[in-house]
Amino acid sequence: MELDKKLEKLASRLRIRPIEWLDDGRVRWLDVRLIPWEEVYRETRDYRRLAKAIRDMEIRGAPAIGVAAALGLALAAFHSKASNVGELLKDLEEAANVLRETRPTAYNLFWAIDRVLERARRAASESSSVDDVRNAVIEEAKRIMLEDIEANIRMGEIGAKLIQDGDTILTHCNTGALATAGYGTALGVIRAAVEEGKRIRVIATETRPLLQGARLTVWELVKEGIDVTLITDNMVGYVMSKGLVDKVFVGADRITLDGYVANKIGTYTIAVLANRHGVPFYVVAPTSTIDPRLRGPSIPIEERDPDEVRTVVGKVVITVPEVRVLNPAFDVTPPELVTAIITERGIATKPYEKSIPRILGLKEDDGEKGG
Amino acid sequence: MELDKKLEKLASRLRIRPIEWLDDGRVRWLDVRLIPWEEVYRETRDYRRLAKAIRDMEIRGAPAIGVAAALGLALAAFHSKASNVGELLKDLEEAANVLRETRPTAYNLFWAIDRVLERARRAASESSSVDDVRNAVIEEAKRIMLEDIEANIRMGEIGAKLIQDGDTILTHCNTGALATAGYGTALGVIRAAVEEGKRIRVIATETRPLLQGARLTVWELVKEGIDVTLITDNMVGYVMSKGLVDKVFVGADRITLDGYVANKIGTYTIAVLANRHGVPFYVVAPTSTIDPRLRGPSIPIEERDPDEVRTVVGKVVITVPEVRVLNPAFDVTPPELVTAIITERGIATKPYEKSIPRILGLKEDDGEKGG
Repeated sequence: MELDKKLEKLASRLRIRPIEWLDDGRVRWLDVRLIPWEEVYRETRDYRRLAKAIRDMEIRGAPAIGVAAALGLALAAFHSKASNVGELLKDLEEAANVLRETRPTAYNLFWAIDRVLERARRAASESSSVDDVRNAVIEEAKRIMLEDIEANIRMGEIGAKLIQDGDTILTHCNTGALATAGYGTALGVIRAAVEEGKRIRVIATETRPLLQGARLTVWELVKEGIDVTLITDNMVGYVMSKGLVDKVFVGADRITLDGYVANKIGTYTIAVLANRHGVPFYVVAPTSTIDPRLRGPSIPIEERDPDEVRTVVGKVVITVPEVRVLNPAFDVTPPELVTAIITERGIATKPYEKSIPRILGLKEDDGEKGG
Repeated sequence: MELDKKLEKLASRLRIRPIEWLDDGRVRWLDVRLIPWEEVYRETRDYRRLAKAIRDMEIRGAPAIGVAAALGLALAAFHSKASNVGELLKDLEEAANVLRETRPTAYNLFWAIDRVLERARRAASESSSVDDVRNAVIEEAKRIMLEDIEANIRMGEIGAKLIQDGDTILTHCNTGALATAGYGTALGVIRAAVEEGKRIRVIATETRPLLQGARLTVWELVKEGIDVTLITDNMVGYVMSKGLVDKVFVGADRITLDGYVANKIGTYTIAVLANRHGVPFYVVAPTSTIDPRLRGPSIPIEERDPDEVRTVVGKVVITVPEVRVLNPAFDVTPPELVTAIITERGIATKPYEKSIPRILGLKEDDGEKGG
């Protein structure tokens, strides 16, 4: 199959394969909660187990979540006992509902589920064979995985043009191989610039509460020999005031049609500081992160378990155990603070209500503000 | 002795006595590195041990560091084997040198050491009795401790006027009893407002790397039944953008004559966010934190052990162990971002180059910029 060959070829370019489909109906993934302490791969035949892996953040990062959800539907299709196409569609709807409930913010999740379901319905309208529909679903899920890797590599090529030899780049959270089907979004751009021979230094924020920067970004960059310095989240103002940062590159979990960017908690703070210090602030995300139905800052933000804040990755309690905490997993950066958004289809700049619809191939935003 | 009675009376108002002088020549302190897990008091007769306690942050917070250094000189005086005043002064100079080397940023350290040495020299010029000079030193150290508690209570009274019933106050690091001889600076103001019957909510940042907010501030506030919510440092932008913060109150480690404020790393970031969101940003510090010889942003900033960032309080390694890190313990907030500075002698506002010298009883700053 041409798709499989392409995937194999692309995968050979990746040093880390965070999630993959095995042809006997299994999904295999790296449990990133255990990085950098242990490198443990897990696998399942059950989409419910994969849903749990998304919810518990064994798999995280908006593009990876989208790919995992698509592969979850592939598992549901592969193992469905449906005796006709109607039953198979019902099984897929049920799996889709379970997968949709895992994380509320990453738009790629909903985008991937809708795309696979749409493909299933189209196949069902063209054939009454359960196997035809099943295969269409599995193929579509694999295509989403393939396209994510391709999009990352393309964003790398496009974004690397914005990086000069000698730049120091600040990044937040993890937007690398461990956040995608491979390669990475913001970290993919950094990777591409290094592959082009540019000398780049990276400053990585640790990214409390779950420390994706300290655990995952540092692990990826040290593995590849890319120069990285770790800071705590509250040092961003310090490094900017000392003139140590040339550019900021971050990922995104959801982008509205007018350029509001939901991303890991702390991103907004970095954007405000970048703005004060005249440091360009770039967002790198595939078009599957853009929610074409949303405008304005009201993006649904996930509030996670307070114990994530009261402890450090469950290993040490760091406060009085009964203290009240806030734990929003994301914040929203307004378009005015975003220098440019790099997608696999090109770079969007202000005004985003014009450039983003253009990139999506929609007619330009009419400026109507949504809820 | 009148001084001892006053101290006893003031101490009875304190729920936590973080450091004290015992009349048989010992200093006793709460080892705040172990809070909130254990409440362990330590004591010593040796000023070198007390210097180690400052360096290792068993005792921390600029006012507490100043008091500890003064008590260190009292220990040196008490246990000195000098047979004449000249020898005693030499012993004191030696102890002063050891104590000065502990932490470079907190101005209170240098202020307190200079003040005690000055008192010793004056006593030596008035008497040739070793015991007279010894007693003068011990009394001066106790007076510094007494005055710190008095200053905190006075700053509480003054600062509480800036707090309205119903306010939510964001604070950073720990500026409470555990950062002073008792009561607190910024947390003292919050305490005073609560004592006046105002309903106050506090948002405390956890304050990586050493988590003084999560460990110490939450511990103090929960103990006293003051409403507190813990956030990670990177949530400050989020809570401000949601309109959850009415005012910011922080402490200081050193303030220049023209209003630059060195304080715990992360303070500058909070000040920038407060400025963007129109939230008043108040600094609370005794006049002993003001360095009358310094102008401009060039305050010496301590760079601490990288393992403080690579681990969480030494208990868990959170990253690739060999990664390079930055670990500045403080940052500098420029005067333009500071709404007011609350001292025990009144409130300084812009322009600080006029108001701060006035509060110190100096002639107004001539505007000359220092290094």
